[in-house]
Amino acid sequence: MDKGRNMDPRISIITLGVTDLERATAFYTALGLPLAQTGSEGIAFFRMAGTVLALYPHDKLAEDVGSRFVGGTTGFSGVTLAHNTRTKPEVDALLARAEAAGGRIEKPAQDVFWGGYSGYFSDPDGHLWEVAWADFWQFNPDGSLIL
Amino acid sequence: MDKGRNMDPRISIITLGVTDLERATAFYTALGLPLAQTGSEGIAFFRMAGTVLALYPHDKLAEDVGSRFVGGTTGFSGVTLAHNTRTKPEVDALLARAEAAGGRIEKPAQDVFWGGYSGYFSDPDGHLWEVAWADFWQFNPDGSLIL
Repeated sequence: MDKGRNMDPRISIITLGVTDLERATAFYTALGLPLAQTGSEGIAFFRMAGTVLALYPHDKLAEDVGSRFVGGTTGFSGVTLAHNTRTKPEVDALLARAEAAGGRIEKPAQDVFWGGYSGYFSDPDGHLWEVAWADFWQFNPDGSLIL
Repeated sequence: MDKGRNMDPRISIITLGVTDLERATAFYTALGLPLAQTGSEGIAFFRMAGTVLALYPHDKLAEDVGSRFVGGTTGFSGVTLAHNTRTKPEVDALLARAEAAGGRIEKPAQDVFWGGYSGYFSDPDGHLWEVAWADFWQFNPDGSLIL
């Protein structure tokens, strides 16, 4: 997408930072949420209508945004929102648009360890959005992720 | 639903606490997200695929959960997730199930100022979920809110 195109109205994933992944996974499983067997270790994904719920260790989540978020001194909330795009250039375009709109680039888009291409911006209140693309993600017609 | 029924896999609303509602609304509008004309004052709703994005003043959001969250001394993250139910009894049932699963009731279900019936639980890491019902909410077939 070009920098001027509207962001698709979609939150692909909500990731909650957790201190004990096993305990947190047990909690949401006990509520009855459907855990997806993704083959990914160290992170739990729940299949939700529209928006995926992910659980990930708090410190690793902070580190994924940037080292300055680790340790809690910056008041890292332990919550990130993810917007997954259908193409790689859309990641750069959306980050640029967020910056132009008054957001802050917290992590420039880059190839990341899990095989995708991703960056983070924060909104004027510091809420963190990851913008990510990977060739192995698949989407429903409404733009939500297939897990 | 009875206490034993599974929670529907759905996050109805993500609410971000903001310090300046006008500034935050301008930011997300600048990204191209569709602001819903809901007639509600003091809160902004964006129509998203599946999950609604809401902006609400940080202190009011903290107060909505409980007075002990106001002022930031408890590390209120400024993020809440909402699960909206189709019936009033489902609110009580889901809160009971969350408590049984190891969550904490932060606000018992009660009639609230905006006309609904709502309570909050926190998960083992303190992430806040509102469970809410109101007779004026309408749902898409997949359980997502119609705005």
